[in-house]
Amino acid sequence: MLPVQDVNHFLENDFPQCRTRVEAFDAQYAKVRHKVEQADLRPGGTVSGPVMFAVADLALYVAILNEKGLIPLAVTTNININFLNKPDASKDLIGECRLIKVGAKLAIGDVFIYSEGSDKPVAHATGTYSIPQQSN
Amino acid sequence: MLPVQDVNHFLENDFPQCRTRVEAFDAQYAKVRHKVEQADLRPGGTVSGPVMFAVADLALYVAILNEKGLIPLAVTTNININFLNKPDASKDLIGECRLIKVGAKLAIGDVFIYSEGSDKPVAHATGTYSIPQQSN
Amino acid sequence: MLPVQDVNHFLENDFPQCRTRVEAFDAQYAKVRHKVEQADLRPGGTVSGPVMFAVADLALYVAILNEKGLIPLAVTTNININFLNKPDASKDLIGECRLIKVGAKLAIGDVFIYSEGSDKPVAHATGTYSIPQQSN
Amino acid sequence: MLPVQDVNHFLENDFPQCRTRVEAFDAQYAKVRHKVEQADLRPGGTVSGPVMFAVADLALYVAILNEKGLIPLAVTTNININFLNKPDASKDLIGECRLIKVGAKLAIGDVFIYSEGSDKPVAHATGTYSIPQQSN
Repeated sequence: MLPVQDVNHFLENDFPQCRTRVEAFDAQYAKVRHKVEQADLRPGGTVSGPVMFAVADLALYVAILNEKGLIPLAVTTNININFLNKPDASKDLIGECRLIKVGAKLAIGDVFIYSEGSDKPVAHATGTYSIPQQSN
Repeated sequence: MLPVQDVNHFLENDFPQCRTRVEAFDAQYAKVRHKVEQADLRPGGTVSGPVMFAVADLALYVAILNEKGLIPLAVTTNININFLNKPDASKDLIGECRLIKVGAKLAIGDVFIYSEGSDKPVAHATGTYSIPQQSN
Repeated sequence: MLPVQDVNHFLENDFPQCRTRVEAFDAQYAKVRHKVEQADLRPGGTVSGPVMFAVADLALYVAILNEKGLIPLAVTTNININFLNKPDASKDLIGECRLIKVGAKLAIGDVFIYSEGSDKPVAHATGTYSIPQQSN
Repeated sequence: MLPVQDVNHFLENDFPQCRTRVEAFDAQYAKVRHKVEQADLRPGGTVSGPVMFAVADLALYVAILNEKGLIPLAVTTNININFLNKPDASKDLIGECRLIKVGAKLAIGDVFIYSEGSDKPVAHATGTYSIPQQSN
């Protein structure tokens, strides 16, 4: 497993716009936190769908980095997301990704997203990343 | 059909963070444009996945507004997105949504996203919106 | 919770073509078994994708029946399925569904499918059912 | 393009349980027909979801065969299907697949399914096939 701070350092450098950070890793598992800011909100005091999508995408990405090492070029090929409950605009979003399959070319995982402190998920996503093949 | 400028005015007021605008409406159809900016880019000079997701989500939303009127409270319940080709970081994203079903409670559509000037889609999404029920 | 045998009896009567049966229920959980037969196989000695889809669909359905009672009219509105590993043609398929959201109008769950005796899933699905509204 | 009868002959030999047949091919396009029989029906006189899924999966498969030749080993990796309207139990199902991307390793397409004679789709699916790599 990678040290959490190494991955967060990598995100700060390579994804400067991204405000989501890793909280914990385990085998085929990553937990991330996204600090909700004004720019993430929608009318009615809710967090926008694209922000939840971005958190799901990042949770998958770091869970794969944790298995494969700091490969910058893994790319998302498919994400299916269901929006389940209205997020709390005053709480951070927490994403929990469990990888379902880690192959040589593809990795697949699912992600539950919560408003911190609640156990009712606000969204659930399943996604596939394509892993770049190293030439030797 | 709604006048394009009315919907863009609505987006400016109600979704101030959103930089995607309607270009054209037709029956069960909307075309949108997203001006790609520095904040939308990823390492390697490509547009981030969440930005393409946001464009797909907005294209669906405005296509539904065009059928149902300016209902602010329609919400996305599901989006499935496939990333197909690398977008061109120097071109606007164009989204074309065709609605597949417009029911009383649900509307479903699909969206192709292109880098302007190319006919090879960079992403394809299918999504469902829940339509709020008006009490009388 | 419903008695397992009541639901299997209901399936035998109402879905005579279906060979999948409930093994166990728990809160927001159902486990099903599908006896793989010659008609389910594909060239190369694998189980066909539509059979795995049917098992996922049925696992969701019975998990919802277990929460809502024997409502015959719940209908699938969306399923997203990823095929992960080649199933073993000589083993039964086991499906495990966990409901993610049980609302008044919609229920959403995810399903892992295994070849019996293996802990590597052969497929993973997420699906939505629409719950018919009882008129009073 | 492949002759329609060659592909139907291939299906008869290699997929003896499959009752779906090709009606027409065009560039990146296939149209298929599924004769609905008693075994395909559900209570309430509708066609079962797994049958519509199977038609979508087959339409994608033959559209890919038409581009790539009669490769028996292409496999589905992901399908997302939305059920839109109740099919007519007395009509054949017609599937129309358009390929969205045909790469060396992956092909992606979408499929509309209709009850014959209606222009309101009963289902819409998007799916990905993995193309086996030929060793030379």
